[in-house]
Amino acid sequence: MTYCLALRLEDGLVFLSDTRTNAGVDNVSTYRKLHVLRPGPDRLFVIQSAGSLATTQQVLDQLALELSSGEPTPLRDARALHEVALHIGQLSLAVADEHRTALQAVGADPTASLIVGGQIGDETPDVLLVYPEGNYIRASDEKPFLQIGESKYGKHQLDIAVHPSVDLETATKIALSSMLSTARANLSVGPPYDLALYRPGAFDVDEARIDEHSPYLGEILEVWHRIVLEAIAELPPVPPHTFND
Amino acid sequence: MTYCLALRLEDGLVFLSDTRTNAGVDNVSTYRKLHVLRPGPDRLFVIQSAGSLATTQQVLDQLALELSSGEPTPLRDARALHEVALHIGQLSLAVADEHRTALQAVGADPTASLIVGGQIGDETPDVLLVYPEGNYIRASDEKPFLQIGESKYGKHQLDIAVHPSVDLETATKIALSSMLSTARANLSVGPPYDLALYRPGAFDVDEARIDEHSPYLGEILEVWHRIVLEAIAELPPVPPHTFND
Repeated sequence: MTYCLALRLEDGLVFLSDTRTNAGVDNVSTYRKLHVLRPGPDRLFVIQSAGSLATTQQVLDQLALELSSGEPTPLRDARALHEVALHIGQLSLAVADEHRTALQAVGADPTASLIVGGQIGDETPDVLLVYPEGNYIRASDEKPFLQIGESKYGKHQLDIAVHPSVDLETATKIALSSMLSTARANLSVGPPYDLALYRPGAFDVDEARIDEHSPYLGEILEVWHRIVLEAIAELPPVPPHTFND
Repeated sequence: MTYCLALRLEDGLVFLSDTRTNAGVDNVSTYRKLHVLRPGPDRLFVIQSAGSLATTQQVLDQLALELSSGEPTPLRDARALHEVALHIGQLSLAVADEHRTALQAVGADPTASLIVGGQIGDETPDVLLVYPEGNYIRASDEKPFLQIGESKYGKHQLDIAVHPSVDLETATKIALSSMLSTARANLSVGPPYDLALYRPGAFDVDEARIDEHSPYLGEILEVWHRIVLEAIAELPPVPPHTFND
């Protein structure tokens, strides 16, 4: 499994992905699931992936080929981010279809879910979730985040804390707390974690990899566990009159 | 959907269930999913249910019939809680089998998952999760809680905070925070919430229903949201040197 999330805020975009992949419990590896494409000076795309690793890699290889060859590609030519999302969605669907029969014969799923975010020219930066079927949805002001993969364990703090006006530093903390909740609850999600921050008009990202043994990861885990316990202690007890004796 | 959880602690047992049921989004109702059976002075059982409401009700009706008739039943005769769990599991499986063909024809699932907890005589109080197939697992000292239904959204605080030595008041707060996280993230889980506390040797429970519009529910929701936000703010930011420029 996998957990990737993307936040769309007034100050910019936050992307966070884990790196754990597994094909059965005895085949666990670390693969990057957050990829940055810079097809030109007026555009930058971040792609996050969940689902079939093979499908994802074939899609990314195809996109790299489009960029390295001189041929026309929506990556370079699209005037809007949703055109890029549709192009990547069509690629993802085609790759999954190509391998569907062989994979389904062994009970495997060829599909991938993707998040495509970034900016083209003067457009407002945005994030889109591309379904395995090739269509997409956007984040909204009411729900300014998207998740793919193991999305339930870390959804609560996103529901409570993410608003479009949250600053990038706070948004990063929210995203990390969501990731920690998920990784603690589900073995198929784990460090290192890849973080990318995008500011409007930058056409570049600040990237960080938070390693499993980094002092910072140890610190946020310790602080997070301590304050969750404190938060629970602070809850008021059930009033005695609520009990029927 | 549904969310029920049960905690097994040195001080006793905590049971918490939501009450929302739905058969499609336009058929939403409130039903009790936490039931207390008192078959004799030396035994008390709490049953929590998730899955098919019809199956659950038929199982409970059958158990009530066993108790009201004079006939032998493991509810009265069992010497150990797991015998009661197996009996209820066999009933649940039989009821599901009875309706399986008709329900599967319309794409519905006849199965139910159950938590059976309580105490018989001098046994240590315990909680068991009864699968739709009729078998069961126990809670353990390493994982002293069981969940049925929509179990992912509220698992994180259980992972962090539940230990066998937690007192009943704190355990109740942990359970409520887990319920609030779940209900916020998933519309199919909602108030009122039924709470039952069991102390070893009591052979009776303290029961409370926390209503949707109760001041207490409003208070814990307000406190919980505030302290989750404070907790996130307290997390250390990503150190600048972590970013590769």
